[in-house]
Amino acid sequence: MKTLPKPQSGAGAAPAVPLTAEELQLASRNHAMPLEMLAVDRTPAGMHYLLIHFDVPVIDAGAWRLRIGGAVRHPLEFTLAQLQAREQRTLAVTLECAGNGRSMLEPRPVSQPWIHGGIGTADWTGTPLAALLEEAGVEAAAVDIVFTGADRGVQGGEEQDYARSLTVSEAMSPDVLLAYAMNGAPLPPQHGFPVRLVVPGWYGMASVKWLTGIEAVTAPFTGFQQMAFYRYQASADDPGEPVTRIRVRSLMVPPGIPDFFTRDRLVESGPVLLRGRAWSGRAPIRQVQVAVDGVWSDAQLDPPDGEFAWRGWSFRWQAEPGRHELMCRAMDAIGQIQPLEPEWNVQGMGNNAVQKVRVTARP
Amino acid sequence: MKTLPKPQSGAGAAPAVPLTAEELQLASRNHAMPLEMLAVDRTPAGMHYLLIHFDVPVIDAGAWRLRIGGAVRHPLEFTLAQLQAREQRTLAVTLECAGNGRSMLEPRPVSQPWIHGGIGTADWTGTPLAALLEEAGVEAAAVDIVFTGADRGVQGGEEQDYARSLTVSEAMSPDVLLAYAMNGAPLPPQHGFPVRLVVPGWYGMASVKWLTGIEAVTAPFTGFQQMAFYRYQASADDPGEPVTRIRVRSLMVPPGIPDFFTRDRLVESGPVLLRGRAWSGRAPIRQVQVAVDGVWSDAQLDPPDGEFAWRGWSFRWQAEPGRHELMCRAMDAIGQIQPLEPEWNVQGMGNNAVQKVRVTARP
Repeated sequence: MKTLPKPQSGAGAAPAVPLTAEELQLASRNHAMPLEMLAVDRTPAGMHYLLIHFDVPVIDAGAWRLRIGGAVRHPLEFTLAQLQAREQRTLAVTLECAGNGRSMLEPRPVSQPWIHGGIGTADWTGTPLAALLEEAGVEAAAVDIVFTGADRGVQGGEEQDYARSLTVSEAMSPDVLLAYAMNGAPLPPQHGFPVRLVVPGWYGMASVKWLTGIEAVTAPFTGFQQMAFYRYQASADDPGEPVTRIRVRSLMVPPGIPDFFTRDRLVESGPVLLRGRAWSGRAPIRQVQVAVDGVWSDAQLDPPDGEFAWRGWSFRWQAEPGRHELMCRAMDAIGQIQPLEPEWNVQGMGNNAVQKVRVTARP
Repeated sequence: MKTLPKPQSGAGAAPAVPLTAEELQLASRNHAMPLEMLAVDRTPAGMHYLLIHFDVPVIDAGAWRLRIGGAVRHPLEFTLAQLQAREQRTLAVTLECAGNGRSMLEPRPVSQPWIHGGIGTADWTGTPLAALLEEAGVEAAAVDIVFTGADRGVQGGEEQDYARSLTVSEAMSPDVLLAYAMNGAPLPPQHGFPVRLVVPGWYGMASVKWLTGIEAVTAPFTGFQQMAFYRYQASADDPGEPVTRIRVRSLMVPPGIPDFFTRDRLVESGPVLLRGRAWSGRAPIRQVQVAVDGVWSDAQLDPPDGEFAWRGWSFRWQAEPGRHELMCRAMDAIGQIQPLEPEWNVQGMGNNAVQKVRVTARP
């Protein structure tokens, strides 16, 4: 790292250690939402974050079927048209990758090296899962519902279709959708065409894309993505706690204009309206604060935008000429608050530490 | 219990030196096309590559105007509806970032660290620029036409709107479009909504997004993106040659299934159909070859897909059990051929060296 040209002023979001070639490959494939897109309520499909473990499958919607089986009294099979003919519901949902913020941990867990952009908010349209499970008649002995996607590959030395589970009661939540549209259009291939799960409030790993099967099982699901990955591990031999709902977080639309390379910001001094979004998968947002050079003040909250979408906020900053560091942090209604420094864990999951934005105000 | 994957064997596309935090920020913002998308003729909007120097501007299409001025007899101004009411033309065009492949150069130029994915092919619909320039009456003294976008920022210490020029004769080509649709839908914000330039055959920097102004000038344009960046420089004090048309290149759909972390591929031994795409901005594709463990054979070309889109190819590989290295290379009708090793230049432009894909065939 020391052989490379010095960062002109160092990036605020600097990973502490250099990246491997493998991480660059992952960063290149797994798209982040550019933070200026925080300015719009609904993230356009091509700007929404993507975390794709294996390859994007190319699926023929006509031949596609969704099978619901396992410990159910009436195994079911649906075509896309049959799902689309059922009760339709649209929810605005903020999705965030569980590994968002990973590259800011130290030591840095080596995987998809997210900075801040593993997020997005879309209108997801589909049919509630609960009614299908009721129709299938989940047996009393079932404990988990396993969702399997069409994307296949090797992770941790294990060949697998991407699969995750919810408990039966989690799966029966009225808000869990089998979604076939995003922002009013059919799902793009990379977002799970033709049908994906959307689990509002949860980190994105629960919202299995390219769904092919739903299976009720009578013993807890132990698949790789459930038991080995997506865990809060304190050390490598700690089995860890499962990653579930999204931790409280806020981000700021980077003010002014960027430097191409450092992404540092330049504004005119004087009044600057700072805007951003805040969200929590556990409770409504209660408060957002903004710090200018370490001094915290309350931001103004926009009206809420449904139960599962991020909430806008704004703050009027009187920018004095010179260099500044801006931060924002949110608190939710159950009192969770973003930490100032990251809380480390082995896999780099759930880092909701406050964002720092470097801004120069021109005289 | 699996813990974090160790870099197993280094990726085929390994950058020679570690990345800076700034490059990670750029890799995260500037989306690559995942290579499995080579399987489809037209790249969906969210999978097409993006290189955005500054921020994605959010533009009100109703208030937007395109001004054509400078050394013209009749300065013109158009609304979006007025442009859409003119002659409409759709072209399938492969666009590639001039810096595609940069991270594989050694020493590695420090900028957006593309591996292979700075590409995409879309149907672009718009109105030919030539007719508008004729209507405006470009004066005989004009030498360049300057295209300015709404994205503004600082690069190389210079504050600027992104701007590039073409010579008058290049701009008068019947294939240059003012495009307002991509794959049959309005441009997404990140692809230049509401109107962008599309210059078929040229590297992507020429196809200015978020167009606001077109100006005929009587002295050669010397803007940053024309004279300082997008140059083939042999050394830092070499003014260099301008980057213009796309060099011949081919890429392969990665066969089989990937490893999450290394992206190395796993196939069953036996017959494997390799597929890919080849393109050149200078002439039609004449030949594609595939190498299996260093032995080259001819691939089969699909029919051409218009003058400006990539051309499909395929190759039947009989995979023996074990580890293999696959490569592909293309030659165009004027005899340009991809080099086996990258040709270095200061900015890391136009690296069209052959792709290497590591595959393990299972017994």
